[in-house]
Amino acid sequence: MISQLPLAQFVFLFGDGKVEGDPTRRDILGGKGAGLAEMTKLSIPVPPGFTISSEVCAYFYNHQYTYPTGFEKEVFKKLGQVEEIMGSFFGDPKNPLLVSVRSGSRVSMPGMMDTVLNLGLNDHTLQGLIQQTQKERFAYDSYRRFIQMYSNVVLGMDLHLFETLLEHHKKKRAVTEDIDLQVSDLKEIVEEYKALVKNQLGKEFPQDPYEQLWGAMGAVFLSWNSPRAITYRKIHHIPSEWGTAVNIQAMVFGNLGNDCATGVAFTRNPSTGEKRIFGEYLINAQGEDVVAGIRTPAPLTDDDGVAPHSLERMMPHVFQELSEISKRLEDHFLEMQDIEFTIQKGKVWLLQTRRGKRSAQAAIRIATDMVSENLISKKEALLRVEPVQLDQLLHPMIDPEAPKEVLAKGLPASPGAATGQVVFSPDEAEAWVNQGRKVILVRMETSPEDIHGMNVASGILTARGGMTSHAAIVARGMGKCCIVGCHELHMDTKSGQMTVRDQKIQLGDVLTINGTTGEVYKGAIPMIQPKLDPAYHTFMSWVDEVRTIHVRANADTPHDARVAREFGAEGIGLCRTEHMFFDLTRIDAMREMILADNEKARRKALAQLLPMQKSDFIGIFKEMKGYAVTIRLLDPPLHEFLPHNNKDLAELAKKIDISFSKLKRKAKSLDEFNPMLGFRGCRLGIAYPEIYEMQVQAIMEAACEVVQEEKVHLRPEIMLPIIGDAYEFDLLKEMVEKVCQDILEKYKTHVDYKIGTMIELPRAALTADEIAKRADFFSFGTNDLTQTTFGISRDDSAFFLPKYVEKGIYEIDPFVRIDQKGVGRLMQMAIALGRQTNSDLKIGICGEHGGDPSSIEFCYQSGLNYVSCSPYRVPLARLAAAQAVLKHETQQK
Amino acid sequence: MISQLPLAQFVFLFGDGKVEGDPTRRDILGGKGAGLAEMTKLSIPVPPGFTISSEVCAYFYNHQYTYPTGFEKEVFKKLGQVEEIMGSFFGDPKNPLLVSVRSGSRVSMPGMMDTVLNLGLNDHTLQGLIQQTQKERFAYDSYRRFIQMYSNVVLGMDLHLFETLLEHHKKKRAVTEDIDLQVSDLKEIVEEYKALVKNQLGKEFPQDPYEQLWGAMGAVFLSWNSPRAITYRKIHHIPSEWGTAVNIQAMVFGNLGNDCATGVAFTRNPSTGEKRIFGEYLINAQGEDVVAGIRTPAPLTDDDGVAPHSLERMMPHVFQELSEISKRLEDHFLEMQDIEFTIQKGKVWLLQTRRGKRSAQAAIRIATDMVSENLISKKEALLRVEPVQLDQLLHPMIDPEAPKEVLAKGLPASPGAATGQVVFSPDEAEAWVNQGRKVILVRMETSPEDIHGMNVASGILTARGGMTSHAAIVARGMGKCCIVGCHELHMDTKSGQMTVRDQKIQLGDVLTINGTTGEVYKGAIPMIQPKLDPAYHTFMSWVDEVRTIHVRANADTPHDARVAREFGAEGIGLCRTEHMFFDLTRIDAMREMILADNEKARRKALAQLLPMQKSDFIGIFKEMKGYAVTIRLLDPPLHEFLPHNNKDLAELAKKIDISFSKLKRKAKSLDEFNPMLGFRGCRLGIAYPEIYEMQVQAIMEAACEVVQEEKVHLRPEIMLPIIGDAYEFDLLKEMVEKVCQDILEKYKTHVDYKIGTMIELPRAALTADEIAKRADFFSFGTNDLTQTTFGISRDDSAFFLPKYVEKGIYEIDPFVRIDQKGVGRLMQMAIALGRQTNSDLKIGICGEHGGDPSSIEFCYQSGLNYVSCSPYRVPLARLAAAQAVLKHETQQK
Repeated sequence: MISQLPLAQFVFLFGDGKVEGDPTRRDILGGKGAGLAEMTKLSIPVPPGFTISSEVCAYFYNHQYTYPTGFEKEVFKKLGQVEEIMGSFFGDPKNPLLVSVRSGSRVSMPGMMDTVLNLGLNDHTLQGLIQQTQKERFAYDSYRRFIQMYSNVVLGMDLHLFETLLEHHKKKRAVTEDIDLQVSDLKEIVEEYKALVKNQLGKEFPQDPYEQLWGAMGAVFLSWNSPRAITYRKIHHIPSEWGTAVNIQAMVFGNLGNDCATGVAFTRNPSTGEKRIFGEYLINAQGEDVVAGIRTPAPLTDDDGVAPHSLERMMPHVFQELSEISKRLEDHFLEMQDIEFTIQKGKVWLLQTRRGKRSAQAAIRIATDMVSENLISKKEALLRVEPVQLDQLLHPMIDPEAPKEVLAKGLPASPGAATGQVVFSPDEAEAWVNQGRKVILVRMETSPEDIHGMNVASGILTARGGMTSHAAIVARGMGKCCIVGCHELHMDTKSGQMTVRDQKIQLGDVLTINGTTGEVYKGAIPMIQPKLDPAYHTFMSWVDEVRTIHVRANADTPHDARVAREFGAEGIGLCRTEHMFFDLTRIDAMREMILADNEKARRKALAQLLPMQKSDFIGIFKEMKGYAVTIRLLDPPLHEFLPHNNKDLAELAKKIDISFSKLKRKAKSLDEFNPMLGFRGCRLGIAYPEIYEMQVQAIMEAACEVVQEEKVHLRPEIMLPIIGDAYEFDLLKEMVEKVCQDILEKYKTHVDYKIGTMIELPRAALTADEIAKRADFFSFGTNDLTQTTFGISRDDSAFFLPKYVEKGIYEIDPFVRIDQKGVGRLMQMAIALGRQTNSDLKIGICGEHGGDPSSIEFCYQSGLNYVSCSPYRVPLARLAAAQAVLKHETQQK
Repeated sequence: MISQLPLAQFVFLFGDGKVEGDPTRRDILGGKGAGLAEMTKLSIPVPPGFTISSEVCAYFYNHQYTYPTGFEKEVFKKLGQVEEIMGSFFGDPKNPLLVSVRSGSRVSMPGMMDTVLNLGLNDHTLQGLIQQTQKERFAYDSYRRFIQMYSNVVLGMDLHLFETLLEHHKKKRAVTEDIDLQVSDLKEIVEEYKALVKNQLGKEFPQDPYEQLWGAMGAVFLSWNSPRAITYRKIHHIPSEWGTAVNIQAMVFGNLGNDCATGVAFTRNPSTGEKRIFGEYLINAQGEDVVAGIRTPAPLTDDDGVAPHSLERMMPHVFQELSEISKRLEDHFLEMQDIEFTIQKGKVWLLQTRRGKRSAQAAIRIATDMVSENLISKKEALLRVEPVQLDQLLHPMIDPEAPKEVLAKGLPASPGAATGQVVFSPDEAEAWVNQGRKVILVRMETSPEDIHGMNVASGILTARGGMTSHAAIVARGMGKCCIVGCHELHMDTKSGQMTVRDQKIQLGDVLTINGTTGEVYKGAIPMIQPKLDPAYHTFMSWVDEVRTIHVRANADTPHDARVAREFGAEGIGLCRTEHMFFDLTRIDAMREMILADNEKARRKALAQLLPMQKSDFIGIFKEMKGYAVTIRLLDPPLHEFLPHNNKDLAELAKKIDISFSKLKRKAKSLDEFNPMLGFRGCRLGIAYPEIYEMQVQAIMEAACEVVQEEKVHLRPEIMLPIIGDAYEFDLLKEMVEKVCQDILEKYKTHVDYKIGTMIELPRAALTADEIAKRADFFSFGTNDLTQTTFGISRDDSAFFLPKYVEKGIYEIDPFVRIDQKGVGRLMQMAIALGRQTNSDLKIGICGEHGGDPSSIEFCYQSGLNYVSCSPYRVPLARLAAAQAVLKHETQQK
């Protein structure tokens, strides 16, 4: 039984002031279709066309690549309306209508899906085009492009075959640019292209415009599930069931001569946020030429009078018209727009408008500016910045004081700085990063097939392309440092090296790139913390006005604590004590403790560790005075502190004066089959209470001394890991409490300490009511809670987790975003149960999810008191927490 | 703030027909106190005394070893009442009252706690005792025994010191038995004992009877937490907070002459269940002599006229009186009783009555007999047999047809048979068993300190002791095969060997013992399945009448399937397919599959495995026709099938013709940090669908062929392991379904197959509503569910789990009994959620908990459809399931 779609409209006309689709229904029209409809409504010049609903895409995939009943008829009807508006006719050899066929998904997926331009051309309509335009060369070039594009996108042929033929002709003519080919060349090429198709596929290139149209439409739908589109969706968490709409639109031409052009523009500067139209264009070119980055375009504006080829200088009237359209679009959408335009014989046509991607800095500046301009409210402004962008904003930048020599300079496509080893292909990038290295991906230009390498690279550098090239757009979207159009690079990928003037750069050489200035340096350049501009501070003050839950940081050292405070952390949510023991000066005492045969020997070794631990805590307390500091007692299994090969073991045996064989035996006896589920966390405290006693002593003595010395109020919170049972907690709490009381008595002072627990095992969540009776606080350890709830060891998940995400079993890696159905359900149980028996219970989260915006929203909705994340993620978390409040407010309305 | 007990009665008199305590309150009076109170009520002769409530024990431990206010006064008052009844007075040098001080916990813990007899003796009352009894030798012997016992139990001195002195005197006199010592010897020994105490402790042996009394009482309370008592409680799951009562009772003497005796009796035979008084006694002895097994006692009855020393022959009137008391007790308690008695100058005194421990066979026989005798109802009978006893009943027995030579013969103390290596100490037993060996613990006699060794041994053999000795009682309680009083054994523990007539038996030699006949054989003797007697079948038919949930077995082979059916399994709840691959003839094909570089090579290796898997299933289906067979698809991580050392890897490399280094690399690449949480279960099926496809093909082809060949109805149930997500299940179900449909079509037949899932991850339980939408059944894999819920790897838990049980954090190892608070809560969530979306959902359990009676009760209450356990546990599970119904009925009333 085949299910039928309800009788609905599948095809929506736009053009000549008539708009059938509802521009707010991006789910149906896609982003491009909605933008075209909206612009048509606003009487902005848009070539007429129609949008095929994304519901058709769903139908197409659910019904063996077929279309709903009546759909074909609808398409013909709309095509007829477009013919009427244009006064030309699809397939008419005298006066042909040519169309573009483009994808248009709900959110932008730049370059990920397929497009066919100049559709409707065949041997007969070609003649009509020549007549219409009186440009024979243009018409043949269009036909050539069309055959090439269609054969590739729809017929699945290798582009390379066509390019080789083209190169051959250029060589024959001894020219380097397509533009220098003659009409006669193009005529020959068209014939050769058609022969190539016939030769390869065993049938003629389709001459029937309708066959072309259905072929292109199917290809666009199919491209929704192309590998690169799937990768992009995975990275950007776009559901695969959304599907894409298809836009079929009358062609306008930017390549009819020097009074023609094509370009892209942002209504404000997407890198700095400056309020001025910003963009690039190419004279006498088709739109794809700009995006592909094959020719380097000229800027739109002539800011400092240094851009003689700018549109502002070359076509001032057109620039004026474009600027006005830009303002109208912004006033309408109340948002910075990213537009595509074509200038045909001096007339501006808009082909697309959408929300512009922007750097973090620009996002904040635009948001705050728009509040000053009374365009949007403060709350609206807060929703205009993606929390993850703040992460990018705060990452280190190149120290301007550091000595450095500029190797080359390109366009600053995406701000930030990165150091890494040079790789020349996305596959190399992936392989090297998997080996734990950092890489700079260097390419002639990037294409959608490079996504996987771009995603793992620390920075991206291309020899070609402009600020709106594929590399630039994608890198900005990823918040990744990127330089494009660095013409001084000469790449020889075959020999695995590139040259910059006289210098050779080989695979694996270290480069540093500065995406904010466009400069490339040899070697690693020191980085510093960026200065945050006033807009940032204004913006974050609004954030904190709205936010209701606290944001703490995970910090193990006084330095981390300081950074966290500077980023606005309101306490430490997780101070891991084990990292302190890995220090080279301490690990021996730690190892002695682990290898001790009895409690006495263990206590002796612990006595050496005590002053070290204490000094750590003194440093942290001094940084965090007044703020809570949650300190987790020793958590990892003891064998993690021992060497794992014979050489290191022999060395250790000598150092601590025990026999090698005994040491080896002892080390082996500590080995575990599943250390994640083994002898760790509070299980250590139960078996060897003296370890925890020492740690608590160090915490409390440190607290007492800082209180006495600095006369401050301190709030240490002692946290027990891997608790799974109330009585287990009670026993340890009793022990901790006793040590605390003894020390407070000894120092005759008061410290406002608390004792609580991680909730990181399902059993802790399930018995939270009992545990909460005596615990002062809970902190969700969602890393381990996710591991145990899913039964997945994060360390081992590489075998299957990618396949799970790929197959859509997990929409998103559950270690990145809280799995609300499972882990989240346990969390909500624990919260409800815990507050049932202890209404004062303070509850936070300190797993890595504490720095993930969507998880923070979940924590807010679940009633947590705070989230804790890495220091650099604190601003992000603050913003995500504020946005959660705003989104919830909206939902309540 | 010290909490006060409510004003309550702490001391309860019994004697002379007066009874203060409520005999149903075993929680307060303890088992012994309740029995004494009840017997006193029934006018059965019981020496008067009083019971100190177990609440005092709790107080004692909670208040730094002190007693509640007013308690001392209460004790003195009751003591006065006892003096009045007896007409003798505590501490009176003319007419002294002597008392025993004994423990009495809620359930019997034989020999685990301390006892002091003859208390009240000192240098002065000794003279009074002589006057009273006119037996100077007896009196001095009693004083000697008292000093020795008190010094050991209360003053903490080593018994050995006293025994050495005694041996010294026997040597001097050239006698071997205590009884041959003269009064003058005993007088000297008493003086030497007192000097020994003074010398060792620096103070006199206490002469004040009241000091003695309080000392003994404290010692009994303290013995509640002696290491052996704690071990016993752990083994028997007795809560440590119960505490013990203390019974203080006027002494009667079985050692006043040859008209005196002491003994123990069962109202029916505890080994066979025969309805006849059964027991042993010693003439002229104190009670401890029988239990300790130092002298071998005579039987009570003279069944075949072969026991001239039996009580029946020696003291026929006394035997008559004892038999009548036995009948009265049984008629009153409607239960087989285990009694202790003393005969003082021809008069019978009862010192204890309690429910008698019995073998499984006896338990069933007594229960069914009592129904025939109209003493109890069928339902009552079902509650009279411990499910775990059935396990014992079904275990293999020695093949009577097998050739064997009897090495020695002892008393058949606890039925069953065992083969193992000889060890001579409980510590050896524990160490050897930990190394994976099976041992027979051989001892001169056992004492409570041996418990840990007895617990791990496969069988127990002692040279001394009778049917009611410590070894015999404990072994019966444990359901463990045991022979006692095997006098032919001559043990020389120093040289680490024993001799039996002329044969030497050394540490590590293999013996087989038959606890049903008392025979000891050299070497391993073949075992067979025991024949079950008609009482068993009657009993099990009642079980099945009452039981409402199904019982299935976990069986991987046709043989296991047959055994399971014979024990009454109603299907297979878990057929693991991986064991089939470990077979030597198959593992190479399996390894080839694992090492395959691509799907094609994998499919090639799988094709070899297909016919093997298919033949396994054909065998199982033929055994189980008509019953459901749940087959779990491949579960363990693939590296489990690969060799783990270089030698074996090299061999394999040669065999399957790949390079060693490649094999090693591949094997290493499969290594995991936490394999429990790694690439296993259905994750294999998602990554390599061809593996599961082959397995499903094998199952369905086997089913089709058996259906066509035997014209039976088959019910294969295909089960997916480690499911954690509904979509994961859906994807795999779709794949399984497709294979099934293809095969059914190919065979043109019908098989009623089902597709379901294990619920063994918290996330599966938490999202059970979604999973249940498409699953036909759930089966709780509580082993893994316990591991993930607790975050405990069972393999690694040895580091800390014993400590957790010891500290009382886990009352019982959660891998033995379902943790209701955590794991059980998840199970109940899964059941409720699952049935919400699929009211037909069949739910079972196949973890090891499926064979644990308490867990089965929980499963019944939670609404499971079936439990599945190992074949030998099936009868146990049937009984536990029936008892769950009965207990629940009782609760509802």
